Amino acid sequence: MHVVPPALERLIKELSRFPGIGEKTATRLALYILRKPASDASRLAEALSDLHASIQLCSNCYTFSETDPCDICSDQRRRDDLVCVVEEPGDLLAIEKTGVYRGVYHILHGALSPMDGIGPEELKIKELLGRVKSSSIKEVVLATSSTVPGEATASYLADILQRMNMNTTRLACGIPMGMDIKYADMHTLGRAIETRQSLG
Amino acid sequence: MHVVPPALERLIKELSRFPGIGEKTATRLALYILRKPASDASRLAEALSDLHASIQLCSNCYTFSETDPCDICSDQRRRDDLVCVVEEPGDLLAIEKTGVYRGVYHILHGALSPMDGIGPEELKIKELLGRVKSSSIKEVVLATSSTVPGEATASYLADILQRMNMNTTRLACGIPMGMDIKYADMHTLGRAIETRQSLG
Repeated sequence: MHVVPPALERLIKELSRFPGIGEKTATRLALYILRKPASDASRLAEALSDLHASIQLCSNCYTFSETDPCDICSDQRRRDDLVCVVEEPGDLLAIEKTGVYRGVYHILHGALSPMDGIGPEELKIKELLGRVKSSSIKEVVLATSSTVPGEATASYLADILQRMNMNTTRLACGIPMGMDIKYADMHTLGRAIETRQSLG
Repeated sequence: MHVVPPALERLIKELSRFPGIGEKTATRLALYILRKPASDASRLAEALSDLHASIQLCSNCYTFSETDPCDICSDQRRRDDLVCVVEEPGDLLAIEKTGVYRGVYHILHGALSPMDGIGPEELKIKELLGRVKSSSIKEVVLATSSTVPGEATASYLADILQRMNMNTTRLACGIPMGMDIKYADMHTLGRAIETRQSLG
């Protein structure tokens, strides 16, 4: 007896593999797809099939790209002596959206997390140090997340880079814009006080 | 200049068509798929392609099924004189999960909503009345949602069914199990008081 038709069950199972999507949401999404015309499902299926075929890693900065080097690395208007180090391609997209950064990137594809078996060899750290040695980079901005693995990665890299006499910076940590300080968590607030900036 | 590779952009666009999935979530999901092996994406693509090909509507109750009549309508152990009317196939799945209902179903594929141009002709109401007239149904349970369109649909159907002398019932409305009554909204609480049940 199939209350849920097998083809639907299968799609629900595939959808619930996503992070943050449980069985309930997967069921809702699958039923939504089923109510829509078959052509909508085919379009999504095609986009999925094409994805890996047309996207590779840029051999310079290791972001996802259809070209190599990627459009950012090959953009003449960007500063190639300023490198922003991020954990994931999604972090690059978030920074690009701000519109304030005009340098290039280096994607680590993760952050140091010995508990999960992720050491320096699992990340694109050797490749970063290779870039720093061989080209005329003037500043490396460490833009890993403000999480335990992100901070660990940043301090690991800062150590090495400073021994190489590289000018190394870190994203500012503080109160988010528009936030009432009484709702900020104590660690953020503490850090914001310690790293307070002089005005004018 | 493509900060986001076109193939990725396309998948993000397709994913953000889903209800409840904005551009940010779609980007997160697409990047997650890209980090996983291509075979995972193919499996999901296949599940999507197969969906509409293998699923049709049961010609009796109008739920999604790979067989016609569906497994529920053709199950001899279920009462075929008890019909539960729901808006969507997802509602059927929710009721089946409770394990307390042993009758059959009728899926309306929506609820009356004149503002959105959904009248009785847009729903499987003619088909429901056809079933009521031609078979030996003893009770129709109106299990449309407790929303404005759901209530409108239930009272529209109750009117017609009662004129046909059909025994018509509605799901009980009241305080959810485990809820502190001081957190229940006043409409639910009011209804729960009006429809209070005698004990023993």
